[in-house]
Amino acid sequence: MNIGVLGTGMVGETLGTKLVSLNHNVKMGSRSASNEKAAAWVKKNGANASQGTFAEASKFGELILNCTKGEVALEALKIAGEENLKGKVLIDVSNPLDFSKGMPPTLTVCNTDSVGEQIQKNFPSVKVVKTFNTMNCLIMVNPRSLSGSHNVFICGNDAGAKNKIRDLLKSFSWKDEEILDLGDITASRGMEMVLPLWLRIMGTFKSGAFNFNIVK
Amino acid sequence: MNIGVLGTGMVGETLGTKLVSLNHNVKMGSRSASNEKAAAWVKKNGANASQGTFAEASKFGELILNCTKGEVALEALKIAGEENLKGKVLIDVSNPLDFSKGMPPTLTVCNTDSVGEQIQKNFPSVKVVKTFNTMNCLIMVNPRSLSGSHNVFICGNDAGAKNKIRDLLKSFSWKDEEILDLGDITASRGMEMVLPLWLRIMGTFKSGAFNFNIVK
Repeated sequence: MNIGVLGTGMVGETLGTKLVSLNHNVKMGSRSASNEKAAAWVKKNGANASQGTFAEASKFGELILNCTKGEVALEALKIAGEENLKGKVLIDVSNPLDFSKGMPPTLTVCNTDSVGEQIQKNFPSVKVVKTFNTMNCLIMVNPRSLSGSHNVFICGNDAGAKNKIRDLLKSFSWKDEEILDLGDITASRGMEMVLPLWLRIMGTFKSGAFNFNIVK
Repeated sequence: MNIGVLGTGMVGETLGTKLVSLNHNVKMGSRSASNEKAAAWVKKNGANASQGTFAEASKFGELILNCTKGEVALEALKIAGEENLKGKVLIDVSNPLDFSKGMPPTLTVCNTDSVGEQIQKNFPSVKVVKTFNTMNCLIMVNPRSLSGSHNVFICGNDAGAKNKIRDLLKSFSWKDEEILDLGDITASRGMEMVLPLWLRIMGTFKSGAFNFNIVK
């Protein structure tokens, strides 16, 4: 599948690399078509990897992954252009963390809204699926690196889009019963608001190599 | 031990009953000394159970459990009176859920502050320990009712107070390795902000009989 990955940070790199390893064609998008981090990633990942602007990566992908920071996600998608996103499935991995006021970071949006909801509202034809934002990116692409079962949450308004993402997650070695569908896109709120707890646990463990498992 | 439980809702009742069953003397406090729910609870729980005002229950207890709703917790503690709380350990179980604007509820405080922090700030001599707020009260008192391991978070500024609460949790059958100390009282923020996710999972399972387990 042709996939556009927006964002050249560790999350975009890690997810892009995993997707290339699964034989997808991935174009990494950024503000500039010649972004150095994207160029380095392309060099490492061979013929199925390419780079471009946000718009080029969005046009290229039948599936889009928003791996930009939550506080700039909407702006990045506006630069990508509605015409390049229209009707497509978009995975929103982002978290609206604001580190500008020191530690611990706060959220730029929460409680009555979320980045996931804002994207859906601004791009009504896009099928937004929120997932992956509640864990470190190394766990996203290698869930079996942790001991035992743990969960990845998904939410979104379009059942068909969620089924496609469920299949993608399974291709990453997530087990079907580990994928917890929390309903429509408003569940993004809870998924993003878990970040302060996640960060606190990371501080306690001095490692991001953990995840939430829901025990019944 | 003499324990004051503030609040006559399901959380106060359930924790009070568990504490009586462990041979503690428990006084349930409310706005009125003759609260009917407290009276019914006393009747069911025998000689070690009693009731009184917020002030009487706080005076009685060497340990205080705040089981009032988060949005009224500060007010309840002000009615209880600083002179009755001074220097004591107080467990804050509350969540600042606001159901007044419909479902899903929002939080009356979050992101840059929390109920746990507000209580600590308003009652500096009190040793506030936040715990238990991330699960249903039936799980608090019967952690072994779920399959396998899962976690209870604690935080607070006073190490001695946290050790006392750790012992109390162990007397409820929590395993030492399941008690995750997240540091000072500012961790309340993350612990309270997990509620929207908790509520969403509860809606998905149609049951509160679950808890978070942190998998490494």
